[in-house]
Amino acid sequence: MSNNQLKDLSKLCIHTITTKPWSIEEAAKNYSAGGVRGITVWRDALEGRNIKKTGEMLNEQGLSVVSLCRGGFFPSREPVRRQAAIDDNRKAIEEASALGAKIIVLVCGADPAQSLEDSRKQIHDGISAILPDAKGAGIRLAIEPLHPMYADTRSAINTMTQANDLAETLNSEYIGVVVDVYHVWWDPQLEKEIERCGENRNLFAFHVCDWKSPTVDMLNDRGLMGEGCIPVRKIRSWVEAAGFNGFNEVEIFSTTYWKQDQSAFLKKIMTAYKTCV
Amino acid sequence: MSNNQLKDLSKLCIHTITTKPWSIEEAAKNYSAGGVRGITVWRDALEGRNIKKTGEMLNEQGLSVVSLCRGGFFPSREPVRRQAAIDDNRKAIEEASALGAKIIVLVCGADPAQSLEDSRKQIHDGISAILPDAKGAGIRLAIEPLHPMYADTRSAINTMTQANDLAETLNSEYIGVVVDVYHVWWDPQLEKEIERCGENRNLFAFHVCDWKSPTVDMLNDRGLMGEGCIPVRKIRSWVEAAGFNGFNEVEIFSTTYWKQDQSAFLKKIMTAYKTCV
Repeated sequence: MSNNQLKDLSKLCIHTITTKPWSIEEAAKNYSAGGVRGITVWRDALEGRNIKKTGEMLNEQGLSVVSLCRGGFFPSREPVRRQAAIDDNRKAIEEASALGAKIIVLVCGADPAQSLEDSRKQIHDGISAILPDAKGAGIRLAIEPLHPMYADTRSAINTMTQANDLAETLNSEYIGVVVDVYHVWWDPQLEKEIERCGENRNLFAFHVCDWKSPTVDMLNDRGLMGEGCIPVRKIRSWVEAAGFNGFNEVEIFSTTYWKQDQSAFLKKIMTAYKTCV
Repeated sequence: MSNNQLKDLSKLCIHTITTKPWSIEEAAKNYSAGGVRGITVWRDALEGRNIKKTGEMLNEQGLSVVSLCRGGFFPSREPVRRQAAIDDNRKAIEEASALGAKIIVLVCGADPAQSLEDSRKQIHDGISAILPDAKGAGIRLAIEPLHPMYADTRSAINTMTQANDLAETLNSEYIGVVVDVYHVWWDPQLEKEIERCGENRNLFAFHVCDWKSPTVDMLNDRGLMGEGCIPVRKIRSWVEAAGFNGFNEVEIFSTTYWKQDQSAFLKKIMTAYKTCV
Protein backbone atom coordinates (compact mmCIF):
# COMPACT_ATOMS: atom_id res chain seq x y z
CA MET A 1 0.00 0.00 0.00
CA SER A 2 2.79 2.43 0.90
CA ASN A 3 4.19 3.17 -2.55
CA ASN A 4 1.14 5.14 -3.53
CA GLN A 5 0.66 6.93 -0.20
CA LEU A 6 -0.52 10.54 -0.09
CA LYS A 7 2.29 12.65 1.35
CA ASP A 8 0.26 15.69 2.38
CA LEU A 9 -3.24 17.11 2.67
CA SER A 10 -3.06 19.31 -0.43
CA LYS A 11 -5.74 17.28 -2.21
CA LEU A 12 -7.93 16.60 0.80
CA CYS A 13 -11.45 17.98 0.50
CA ILE A 14 -14.12 17.46 3.16
CA HIS A 15 -17.89 17.60 2.71
CA THR A 16 -19.67 19.83 5.17
CA ILE A 17 -22.08 16.99 5.94
CA THR A 18 -19.14 14.89 7.17
CA THR A 19 -18.87 17.23 10.16
CA LYS A 20 -22.59 17.99 10.25
CA PRO A 21 -22.69 19.33 13.84
CA TRP A 22 -20.43 22.22 12.75
CA SER A 23 -21.79 25.31 11.01
CA ILE A 24 -20.08 26.05 7.71
CA GLU A 25 -18.15 28.83 9.46
CA GLU A 26 -16.84 26.42 12.10
CA ALA A 27 -16.09 23.80 9.47
CA ALA A 28 -14.15 26.28 7.33
CA LYS A 29 -12.10 27.55 10.24
CA ASN A 30 -11.27 24.07 11.53
CA TYR A 31 -10.58 22.50 8.13
CA SER A 32 -8.31 25.39 7.25
CA ALA A 33 -6.44 25.30 10.56
CA GLY A 34 -5.86 21.57 10.02
CA GLY A 35 -4.35 22.11 6.58
CA VAL A 36 -7.31 20.95 4.52
CA ARG A 37 -7.49 22.79 1.19
CA GLY A 38 -10.87 21.80 -0.26
CA ILE A 39 -14.48 21.92 0.86
CA THR A 40 -17.63 20.58 -0.73
CA VAL A 41 -20.70 22.41 0.47
CA TRP A 42 -24.05 20.80 1.15
CA ARG A 43 -26.92 23.15 0.46
CA ASP A 44 -28.35 22.86 3.98
CA ALA A 45 -25.12 24.43 5.27
CA LEU A 46 -25.98 27.60 3.35
CA GLU A 47 -29.40 28.14 4.87
CA GLY A 48 -30.01 31.67 6.07
CA ARG A 49 -26.70 32.91 4.69
CA ASN A 50 -25.58 35.27 1.95
CA ILE A 51 -24.15 32.70 -0.41
CA LYS A 52 -21.71 35.00 -2.19
CA LYS A 53 -20.24 36.20 1.11
CA THR A 54 -20.04 32.61 2.33
CA GLY A 55 -18.03 31.71 -0.74
CA GLU A 56 -15.70 34.63 -0.06
CA MET A 57 -15.29 33.50 3.54
CA LEU A 58 -14.31 30.00 2.33
CA ASN A 59 -11.72 31.46 -0.02
CA GLU A 60 -10.35 33.66 2.75
CA GLN A 61 -9.82 30.50 4.75
CA GLY A 62 -7.75 29.16 1.87
CA LEU A 63 -10.37 26.64 0.84
CA SER A 64 -11.24 25.72 -2.74
CA VAL A 65 -14.95 25.16 -3.14
CA VAL A 66 -14.95 21.85 -4.96
CA SER A 67 -18.63 21.03 -5.37
CA LEU A 68 -22.12 21.93 -4.30
CA CYS A 69 -24.19 18.98 -3.06
CA ARG A 70 -26.66 18.32 -4.40
CA GLY A 71 -28.94 18.66 -7.38
CA GLY A 72 -30.91 15.96 -9.13
CA PHE A 73 -34.00 14.06 -7.95
CA PHE A 74 -35.62 14.51 -11.35
CA PRO A 75 -38.05 11.56 -11.57
CA SER A 76 -41.64 11.65 -10.44
CA ARG A 77 -44.91 10.30 -11.74
CA GLU A 78 -46.27 13.80 -11.20
CA PRO A 79 -45.37 16.33 -13.94
CA VAL A 80 -45.67 19.20 -11.47
CA ARG A 81 -43.03 17.59 -9.28
CA ARG A 82 -40.72 17.02 -12.22
CA GLN A 83 -40.99 20.72 -13.07
CA ALA A 84 -40.35 21.62 -9.42
CA ALA A 85 -37.18 19.51 -9.55
CA ILE A 86 -35.98 21.31 -12.67
CA ASP A 87 -36.67 24.65 -11.00
CA ASP A 88 -34.76 23.57 -7.93
CA ASN A 89 -31.80 22.45 -10.02
CA ARG A 90 -31.74 25.86 -11.70
CA LYS A 91 -31.68 27.39 -8.23
CA ALA A 92 -28.76 25.11 -7.35
CA ILE A 93 -26.89 26.38 -10.40
CA GLU A 94 -27.41 29.94 -9.20
CA GLU A 95 -26.23 28.97 -5.73
CA ALA A 96 -23.12 27.26 -7.10
CA SER A 97 -22.35 30.39 -9.13
CA ALA A 98 -22.72 32.66 -6.14
CA LEU A 99 -20.67 30.33 -3.96
CA GLY A 100 -17.90 29.84 -6.48
CA ALA A 101 -18.37 26.05 -6.76
CA LYS A 102 -17.46 24.67 -10.18
CA ILE A 103 -19.41 21.42 -9.94
CA ILE A 104 -22.87 20.35 -8.82
CA VAL A 105 -23.22 16.73 -7.73
CA LEU A 106 -26.37 15.13 -9.12
CA VAL A 107 -28.14 12.47 -7.10
CA CYS A 108 -30.42 11.61 -9.96
CA GLY A 109 -33.50 10.37 -8.10
CA ALA A 110 -36.07 7.58 -8.56
CA ASP A 111 -39.78 7.21 -7.97
CA PRO A 112 -40.82 3.78 -6.68
CA ALA A 113 -44.31 4.41 -8.06
CA GLN A 114 -43.03 3.95 -11.60
CA SER A 115 -40.56 1.72 -13.45
CA LEU A 116 -36.81 2.28 -13.33
CA GLU A 117 -36.94 2.75 -17.10
CA ASP A 118 -39.37 5.66 -16.69
CA SER A 119 -37.24 7.17 -13.94
CA ARG A 120 -34.15 6.90 -16.15
CA LYS A 121 -35.92 8.61 -19.04
CA GLN A 122 -36.97 11.45 -16.73
CA ILE A 123 -33.42 11.78 -15.42
CA HIS A 124 -32.17 12.16 -18.97
CA ASP A 125 -34.85 14.74 -19.73
CA GLY A 126 -34.31 16.65 -16.49
CA ILE A 127 -30.58 16.97 -17.01
CA SER A 128 -31.16 17.98 -20.64
CA ALA A 129 -33.47 20.75 -19.44
CA ILE A 130 -30.93 22.29 -17.07
CA LEU A 131 -27.82 21.72 -19.14
CA PRO A 132 -28.07 25.06 -21.01
CA ASP A 133 -28.33 26.84 -17.64
CA ALA A 134 -25.28 25.01 -16.33
CA LYS A 135 -23.31 25.83 -19.44
CA GLY A 136 -24.39 29.47 -19.24
CA ALA A 137 -23.17 29.67 -15.66
CA GLY A 138 -19.98 27.70 -16.30
CA ILE A 139 -21.02 25.04 -13.79
CA ARG A 140 -20.32 21.38 -14.52
CA LEU A 141 -22.88 18.73 -13.55
CA ALA A 142 -21.58 15.45 -12.16
CA ILE A 143 -23.80 12.35 -12.22
CA GLU A 144 -23.18 10.23 -9.14
CA PRO A 145 -24.15 6.59 -9.60
CA LEU A 146 -25.68 5.49 -6.31
CA HIS A 147 -25.47 2.05 -4.71
CA PRO A 148 -28.25 -0.29 -5.92
CA MET A 149 -29.72 -0.29 -2.40
CA TYR A 150 -30.91 3.25 -3.22
CA ALA A 151 -32.56 2.34 -6.53
CA ASP A 152 -36.06 2.66 -5.10
CA THR A 153 -36.10 6.32 -4.09
CA ARG A 154 -32.70 7.98 -4.53
CA SER A 155 -31.27 7.05 -7.90
CA ALA A 156 -32.15 4.86 -10.85
CA ILE A 157 -28.52 5.30 -11.97
CA ASN A 158 -26.70 2.63 -9.97
CA THR A 159 -23.49 1.71 -11.79
CA MET A 160 -20.58 3.46 -13.43
CA THR A 161 -21.67 1.85 -16.69
CA GLN A 162 -25.04 3.60 -16.51
CA ALA A 163 -23.48 6.92 -15.49
CA ASN A 164 -20.97 6.71 -18.33
CA ASP A 165 -23.72 5.83 -20.81
CA LEU A 166 -25.81 8.78 -19.68
CA ALA A 167 -22.91 11.25 -19.70
CA GLU A 168 -21.87 10.12 -23.17
CA THR A 169 -25.42 10.37 -24.47
CA LEU A 170 -25.76 13.91 -23.12
CA ASN A 171 -22.37 14.61 -24.68
CA SER A 172 -21.35 17.96 -23.21
CA GLU A 173 -18.24 19.17 -21.47
CA TYR A 174 -20.60 20.28 -18.72
CA ILE A 175 -21.73 16.73 -17.93
CA GLY A 176 -19.57 14.15 -16.19
CA VAL A 177 -19.49 11.56 -13.43
CA VAL A 178 -18.63 11.33 -9.72
CA VAL A 179 -16.89 8.16 -8.54
CA ASP A 180 -17.89 7.54 -4.92
CA VAL A 181 -16.25 4.39 -3.60
CA TYR A 182 -19.18 3.65 -1.27
CA HIS A 183 -21.57 3.23 -4.18
CA VAL A 184 -19.44 1.40 -6.70
CA TRP A 185 -16.78 -0.61 -4.86
CA TRP A 186 -18.60 -3.93 -5.35
CA ASP A 187 -18.86 -3.61 -9.15
CA PRO A 188 -16.71 -6.08 -11.11
CA GLN A 189 -16.73 -3.59 -14.02
CA LEU A 190 -15.38 -0.74 -11.87
CA GLU A 191 -11.79 -0.50 -13.10
CA LYS A 192 -12.85 -0.76 -16.72
CA GLU A 193 -15.61 1.83 -16.34
CA ILE A 194 -13.33 4.28 -14.51
CA GLU A 195 -10.90 3.97 -17.40
CA ARG A 196 -13.72 4.61 -19.87
CA CYS A 197 -14.87 7.59 -17.82
CA GLY A 198 -11.42 9.14 -17.95
CA GLU A 199 -10.98 8.49 -21.65
CA ASN A 200 -14.16 10.44 -22.31
CA ARG A 201 -13.04 13.29 -20.02
CA ASN A 202 -16.05 12.60 -17.82
CA LEU A 203 -14.32 11.89 -14.50
CA PHE A 204 -15.23 15.02 -12.56
CA ALA A 205 -14.94 14.04 -8.87
CA PHE A 206 -13.82 11.33 -6.46
CA HIS A 207 -15.47 10.65 -3.07
CA VAL A 208 -14.12 8.39 -0.35
CA CYS A 209 -15.29 6.73 2.88
CA ASP A 210 -15.59 3.03 3.79
CA TRP A 211 -18.11 0.18 4.03
CA LYS A 212 -18.38 -1.27 7.53
CA SER A 213 -19.23 -4.87 8.35
CA PRO A 214 -21.84 -4.93 9.65
CA THR A 215 -23.48 -1.81 8.29
CA VAL A 216 -26.39 -1.18 10.61
CA ASP A 217 -28.11 1.68 8.79
CA MET A 218 -28.53 2.03 5.05
CA LEU A 219 -27.98 5.80 5.11
CA ASN A 220 -25.95 6.97 8.06
CA ASP A 221 -23.47 4.26 8.98
CA ARG A 222 -20.61 4.95 6.62
CA GLY A 223 -17.12 4.24 7.87
CA LEU A 224 -13.93 6.25 7.99
CA MET A 225 -11.44 5.06 5.39
CA GLY A 226 -9.71 1.97 6.76
CA GLU A 227 -12.63 0.86 8.90
CA GLY A 228 -14.17 -1.30 6.23
CA CYS A 229 -13.61 -3.46 3.19
CA ILE A 230 -13.39 -0.93 0.36
CA PRO A 231 -9.98 -0.92 -1.39
CA VAL A 232 -9.89 2.88 -1.37
CA ARG A 233 -6.25 3.25 -2.35
CA LYS A 234 -6.61 0.79 -5.20
CA ILE A 235 -9.62 2.69 -6.53
CA ARG A 236 -7.72 5.98 -6.19
CA SER A 237 -4.94 4.46 -8.29
CA TRP A 238 -7.56 3.64 -10.95
CA VAL A 239 -9.03 7.16 -11.04
CA GLU A 240 -5.54 8.65 -11.21
CA ALA A 241 -4.56 6.25 -13.98
CA ALA A 242 -7.68 7.52 -15.78
CA GLY A 243 -6.27 11.06 -15.63
CA PHE A 244 -8.03 12.44 -12.57
CA ASN A 245 -5.92 14.81 -10.52
CA GLY A 246 -8.54 16.68 -8.47
CA PHE A 247 -9.40 16.54 -4.79
CA ASN A 248 -10.04 13.38 -2.82
CA GLU A 249 -13.32 14.23 -1.10
CA VAL A 250 -14.21 12.72 2.25
CA GLU A 251 -17.97 12.26 2.47
CA ILE A 252 -19.09 10.33 5.54
CA PHE A 253 -22.66 10.14 6.82
CA SER A 254 -22.39 8.67 10.29
CA THR A 255 -24.61 9.11 13.30
CA THR A 256 -21.76 7.54 15.25
CA TYR A 257 -19.21 10.21 14.28
CA TRP A 258 -21.72 13.05 14.38
CA LYS A 259 -22.18 12.29 18.09
CA GLN A 260 -18.45 12.59 18.77
CA ASP A 261 -16.24 15.62 19.26
CA GLN A 262 -15.82 16.98 15.74
CA SER A 263 -12.27 18.27 16.28
CA ALA A 264 -11.16 14.79 17.30
CA PHE A 265 -13.04 13.37 14.33
CA LEU A 266 -11.29 15.79 11.97
CA LYS A 267 -7.94 14.54 13.26
CA LYS A 268 -9.05 10.96 12.61
CA ILE A 269 -10.03 11.93 9.07
CA MET A 270 -6.62 13.47 8.41
CA THR A 271 -4.82 10.39 9.73
CA ALA A 272 -7.07 8.01 7.80
CA TYR A 273 -6.56 10.11 4.69
CA LYS A 274 -2.82 9.60 4.81
CA THR A 275 -2.85 5.95 5.82
CA CYS A 276 -5.79 4.56 3.88
CA VAL A 277 -6.66 6.78 0.86
CA MET B 1 -50.94 -6.88 -15.61
CA SER B 2 -53.99 -9.16 -15.79
CA ASN B 3 -53.22 -11.06 -18.99
CA ASN B 4 -50.34 -12.90 -17.39
CA GLN B 5 -52.04 -13.59 -14.05
CA LEU B 6 -51.49 -16.88 -12.25
CA LYS B 7 -54.79 -18.74 -12.14
CA ASP B 8 -54.04 -21.15 -9.31
CA LEU B 9 -51.50 -22.09 -6.66
CA SER B 10 -50.07 -25.09 -8.49
CA LYS B 11 -46.67 -23.42 -8.89
CA LEU B 12 -46.55 -21.69 -5.53
CA CYS B 13 -43.66 -22.76 -3.33
CA ILE B 14 -42.97 -21.24 0.08
CA HIS B 15 -39.67 -21.16 1.94
CA THR B 16 -39.85 -22.41 5.51
CA ILE B 17 -38.07 -19.25 6.65
CA THR B 18 -40.97 -17.17 5.30
CA THR B 19 -43.12 -18.56 8.10
CA LYS B 20 -40.23 -18.92 10.52
CA PRO B 21 -42.35 -19.13 13.70
CA TRP B 22 -43.83 -22.41 12.42
CA SER B 23 -42.03 -25.72 12.76
CA ILE B 24 -41.58 -27.56 9.47
CA GLU B 25 -44.42 -29.88 10.51
CA GLU B 26 -46.77 -26.94 11.08
CA ALA B 27 -45.62 -25.27 7.88
CA ALA B 28 -46.18 -28.43 5.84
CA LYS B 29 -49.64 -28.98 7.26
CA ASN B 30 -50.73 -25.38 6.76
CA TYR B 31 -49.18 -24.95 3.31
CA SER B 32 -50.80 -28.16 2.16
CA ALA B 33 -54.21 -27.29 3.58
CA GLY B 34 -54.03 -23.96 1.77
CA GLY B 35 -53.33 -25.61 -1.57
CA VAL B 36 -49.62 -24.83 -1.78
CA ARG B 37 -47.72 -27.52 -3.69
CA GLY B 38 -44.05 -26.67 -3.14
CA ILE B 39 -41.77 -26.14 -0.17
CA THR B 40 -38.17 -25.02 0.05
CA VAL B 41 -36.56 -26.13 3.26
CA TRP B 42 -34.06 -24.08 5.24
CA ARG B 43 -31.56 -26.25 7.05
CA ASP B 44 -32.39 -24.81 10.48
CA ALA B 45 -35.92 -26.23 10.05
CA LEU B 46 -34.43 -29.74 10.00
CA GLU B 47 -32.55 -29.50 13.28
CA GLY B 48 -33.10 -32.46 15.59
CA ARG B 49 -35.13 -34.36 12.98
CA ASN B 50 -34.67 -37.49 10.92
CA ILE B 51 -34.23 -35.86 7.55
CA LYS B 52 -35.40 -38.78 5.43
CA LYS B 53 -38.60 -39.11 7.46
CA THR B 54 -39.14 -35.36 7.25
CA GLY B 55 -38.90 -35.59 3.47
CA GLU B 56 -41.48 -38.39 3.49
CA MET B 57 -43.75 -36.30 5.69
CA LEU B 58 -43.54 -33.42 3.19
CA ASN B 59 -44.42 -35.74 0.33
CA GLU B 60 -47.33 -37.16 2.29
CA GLN B 61 -48.62 -33.61 2.60
CA GLY B 62 -48.52 -33.36 -1.19
CA LEU B 63 -45.55 -31.01 -1.20
CA SER B 64 -42.70 -31.10 -3.69
CA VAL B 65 -39.39 -30.33 -2.02
CA VAL B 66 -38.04 -27.70 -4.37
CA SER B 67 -34.73 -26.69 -2.80
CA LEU B 68 -32.61 -26.92 0.29
CA CYS B 69 -31.37 -23.55 1.57
CA ARG B 70 -28.52 -23.09 1.77
CA GLY B 71 -24.98 -24.04 0.91
CA GLY B 72 -22.12 -21.79 -0.06
CA PHE B 73 -20.11 -19.37 2.08
CA PHE B 74 -16.88 -20.62 0.55
CA PRO B 75 -14.50 -17.64 0.92
CA SER B 76 -12.24 -17.07 3.88
CA ARG B 77 -8.72 -15.85 4.39
CA GLU B 78 -8.25 -18.91 6.59
CA PRO B 79 -7.65 -22.18 4.70
CA VAL B 80 -9.11 -24.17 7.59
CA ARG B 81 -12.36 -22.26 7.28
CA ARG B 82 -12.49 -22.78 3.54
CA GLN B 83 -12.12 -26.52 4.11
CA ALA B 84 -14.83 -26.39 6.79
CA ALA B 85 -17.13 -24.71 4.26
CA ILE B 86 -16.47 -27.44 1.70
CA ASP B 87 -17.20 -30.08 4.33
CA ASP B 88 -20.41 -28.32 5.28
CA ASN B 89 -21.50 -28.15 1.65
CA ARG B 90 -20.91 -31.88 1.32
CA LYS B 91 -23.11 -32.35 4.38
CA ALA B 92 -25.77 -30.19 2.70
CA ILE B 93 -25.65 -32.47 -0.34
CA GLU B 94 -26.26 -35.47 1.91
CA GLU B 95 -29.12 -33.64 3.61
CA ALA B 96 -30.69 -32.69 0.27
CA SER B 97 -30.44 -36.34 -0.83
CA ALA B 98 -32.08 -37.59 2.33
CA LEU B 99 -34.78 -34.95 2.15
CA GLY B 100 -35.53 -35.47 -1.52
CA ALA B 101 -34.62 -31.91 -2.56
CA LYS B 102 -33.27 -31.68 -6.08
CA ILE B 103 -31.51 -28.32 -5.72
CA ILE B 104 -29.24 -26.65 -3.18
CA VAL B 105 -29.25 -22.84 -3.20
CA LEU B 106 -25.73 -21.43 -2.92
CA VAL B 107 -25.20 -18.14 -1.12
CA CYS B 108 -21.62 -17.94 -2.23
CA GLY B 109 -20.06 -15.93 0.60
CA ALA B 110 -17.47 -13.16 0.92
CA ASP B 111 -14.76 -12.29 3.41
CA PRO B 112 -14.32 -8.54 4.01
CA ALA B 113 -10.76 -9.21 5.13
CA GLN B 114 -9.71 -9.92 1.55
CA SER B 115 -10.45 -8.58 -1.92
CA LEU B 116 -13.60 -9.42 -3.82
CA GLU B 117 -11.37 -10.95 -6.49
CA ASP B 118 -9.90 -13.37 -3.94
CA SER B 119 -13.36 -14.21 -2.63
CA ARG B 120 -14.58 -14.89 -6.17
CA LYS B 121 -11.64 -17.19 -6.87
CA GLN B 122 -12.39 -19.12 -3.68
CA ILE B 123 -16.06 -19.39 -4.63
CA HIS B 124 -15.06 -20.91 -7.95
CA ASP B 125 -12.69 -23.32 -6.24
CA GLY B 126 -15.17 -24.24 -3.53
CA ILE B 127 -17.93 -25.07 -5.99
CA SER B 128 -15.47 -27.02 -8.13
CA ALA B 129 -14.55 -29.09 -5.09
CA ILE B 130 -18.13 -30.11 -4.28
CA LEU B 131 -19.41 -30.47 -7.83
CA PRO B 132 -18.45 -34.16 -8.15
CA ASP B 133 -20.34 -34.87 -4.91
CA ALA B 134 -23.39 -33.02 -6.19
CA LYS B 135 -23.29 -34.91 -9.46
CA GLY B 136 -22.87 -38.20 -7.64
CA ALA B 137 -25.93 -37.47 -5.54
CA GLY B 138 -27.98 -36.10 -8.45
CA ILE B 139 -28.32 -32.73 -6.69
CA ARG B 140 -28.13 -29.52 -8.71
CA LEU B 141 -26.35 -26.48 -7.26
CA ALA B 142 -27.89 -23.07 -7.91
CA ILE B 143 -25.76 -19.92 -7.57
CA GLU B 144 -27.84 -17.06 -6.19
CA PRO B 145 -26.44 -13.65 -7.04
CA LEU B 146 -26.98 -11.49 -3.95
CA HIS B 147 -27.75 -7.77 -3.84
CA PRO B 148 -24.58 -5.62 -3.84
CA MET B 149 -25.42 -4.48 -0.31
CA TYR B 150 -24.32 -7.98 0.78
CA ALA B 151 -20.99 -7.91 -1.07
CA ASP B 152 -18.99 -7.48 2.14
CA THR B 153 -19.89 -10.65 4.00
CA ARG B 154 -22.56 -12.67 2.17
CA SER B 155 -21.70 -12.91 -1.48
CA ALA B 156 -19.08 -11.61 -3.87
CA ILE B 157 -21.40 -12.70 -6.69
CA ASN B 158 -23.79 -9.74 -6.99
CA THR B 159 -25.25 -9.70 -10.49
CA MET B 160 -26.83 -12.12 -12.92
CA THR B 161 -23.91 -11.42 -15.25
CA GLN B 162 -21.45 -12.71 -12.67
CA ALA B 163 -23.62 -15.72 -11.82
CA ASN B 164 -23.99 -16.58 -15.51
CA ASP B 165 -20.25 -16.20 -16.06
CA LEU B 166 -19.49 -18.49 -13.15
CA ALA B 167 -22.06 -21.11 -14.11
CA GLU B 168 -20.82 -21.14 -17.68
CA THR B 169 -17.20 -21.43 -16.57
CA LEU B 170 -18.02 -24.37 -14.31
CA ASN B 171 -19.95 -25.82 -17.25
CA SER B 172 -21.95 -28.66 -15.75
CA GLU B 173 -25.59 -29.61 -15.88
CA TYR B 174 -25.38 -29.66 -12.07
CA ILE B 175 -24.56 -25.93 -11.85
CA GLY B 176 -27.06 -23.18 -12.51
CA VAL B 177 -28.48 -19.92 -11.19
CA VAL B 178 -31.31 -18.70 -8.93
CA VAL B 179 -33.09 -15.52 -9.95
CA ASP B 180 -34.30 -13.79 -6.78
CA VAL B 181 -36.10 -10.56 -7.63
CA TYR B 182 -34.98 -8.89 -4.37
CA HIS B 183 -31.33 -9.13 -5.34
CA VAL B 184 -31.44 -8.30 -9.04
CA TRP B 185 -34.48 -6.12 -9.74
CA TRP B 186 -32.40 -2.91 -10.03
CA ASP B 187 -30.02 -4.30 -12.68
CA PRO B 188 -30.41 -2.72 -16.14
CA GLN B 189 -28.96 -5.94 -17.62
CA LEU B 190 -31.55 -8.14 -15.94
CA GLU B 191 -33.79 -9.08 -18.86
CA LYS B 192 -30.82 -9.78 -21.12
CA GLU B 193 -29.04 -11.87 -18.48
CA ILE B 194 -32.17 -13.88 -17.68
CA GLU B 195 -32.46 -14.66 -21.37
CA ARG B 196 -28.79 -15.72 -21.47
CA CYS B 197 -29.32 -17.85 -18.36
CA GLY B 198 -32.21 -19.69 -20.00
CA GLU B 199 -30.38 -20.18 -23.27
CA ASN B 200 -27.58 -21.93 -21.39
CA ARG B 201 -30.09 -24.08 -19.45
CA ASN B 202 -28.85 -22.52 -16.23
CA LEU B 203 -32.09 -21.04 -14.90
CA PHE B 204 -32.78 -23.37 -11.99
CA ALA B 205 -35.04 -21.40 -9.63
CA PHE B 206 -37.09 -18.23 -9.22
CA HIS B 207 -37.63 -16.45 -5.88
CA VAL B 208 -40.09 -13.63 -5.22
CA CYS B 209 -40.83 -11.00 -2.56
CA ASP B 210 -40.76 -7.19 -2.76
CA TRP B 211 -38.58 -4.16 -1.95
CA LYS B 212 -40.25 -1.75 0.46
CA SER B 213 -39.68 2.01 0.55
CA PRO B 214 -38.31 2.70 3.02
CA THR B 215 -36.48 -0.52 3.82
CA VAL B 216 -35.53 -0.18 7.46
CA ASP B 217 -33.37 -3.27 7.88
CA MET B 218 -30.90 -4.66 5.37
CA LEU B 219 -31.73 -8.27 6.18
CA ASN B 220 -35.19 -8.73 7.60
CA ASP B 221 -37.47 -6.11 6.09
CA ARG B 222 -38.51 -7.72 2.84
CA GLY B 223 -41.98 -7.01 1.59
CA LEU B 224 -44.84 -9.17 0.43
CA MET B 225 -45.25 -9.05 -3.33
CA GLY B 226 -47.15 -5.86 -4.19
CA GLU B 227 -45.91 -3.91 -1.18
CA GLY B 228 -42.91 -2.48 -2.97
CA CYS B 229 -41.42 -1.36 -6.25
CA ILE B 230 -40.19 -4.62 -7.80
CA PRO B 231 -41.95 -5.46 -11.10
CA VAL B 232 -42.40 -9.08 -10.02
CA ARG B 233 -44.83 -10.05 -12.76
CA LYS B 234 -42.67 -8.52 -15.45
CA ILE B 235 -39.64 -10.42 -14.19
CA ARG B 236 -41.69 -13.64 -14.08
CA SER B 237 -42.58 -13.05 -17.71
CA TRP B 238 -38.85 -12.80 -18.49
CA VAL B 239 -37.94 -16.03 -16.67
CA GLU B 240 -40.83 -17.83 -18.38
CA ALA B 241 -39.78 -16.44 -21.77
CA ALA B 242 -36.33 -17.87 -20.97
CA GLY B 243 -37.90 -21.33 -20.64
CA PHE B 244 -38.36 -21.60 -16.89
CA ASN B 245 -41.48 -23.48 -15.85
CA GLY B 246 -40.73 -24.39 -12.24
CA PHE B 247 -42.14 -23.12 -8.98
CA ASN B 248 -42.44 -19.48 -8.01
CA GLU B 249 -40.86 -19.49 -4.56
CA VAL B 250 -41.94 -17.00 -1.93
CA GLU B 251 -38.95 -16.15 0.27
CA ILE B 252 -39.63 -13.30 2.70
CA PHE B 253 -37.45 -12.41 5.67
CA SER B 254 -39.53 -10.03 7.75
CA THR B 255 -39.49 -9.38 11.45
CA THR B 256 -42.80 -7.58 10.85
CA TYR B 257 -44.55 -10.64 9.40
CA TRP B 258 -42.85 -13.09 11.75
CA LYS B 259 -44.54 -11.25 14.63
CA GLN B 260 -47.97 -11.67 13.09
CA ASP B 261 -50.35 -14.64 13.07
CA GLN B 262 -48.79 -16.99 10.53
CA SER B 263 -52.11 -18.40 9.29
CA ALA B 264 -53.27 -14.89 8.41
CA PHE B 265 -49.88 -14.22 6.81
CA LEU B 266 -50.19 -17.38 4.71
CA LYS B 267 -53.53 -16.13 3.39
CA LYS B 268 -51.92 -12.80 2.49
CA ILE B 269 -49.17 -14.66 0.64
CA MET B 270 -51.70 -16.63 -1.37
CA THR B 271 -53.63 -13.49 -2.29
CA ALA B 272 -50.46 -11.56 -3.17
CA TYR B 273 -49.28 -14.52 -5.24
CA LYS B 274 -52.35 -14.36 -7.45
CA THR B 275 -52.55 -10.58 -7.72
CA CYS B 276 -48.89 -9.55 -7.91
CA VAL B 277 -46.68 -12.45 -9.07
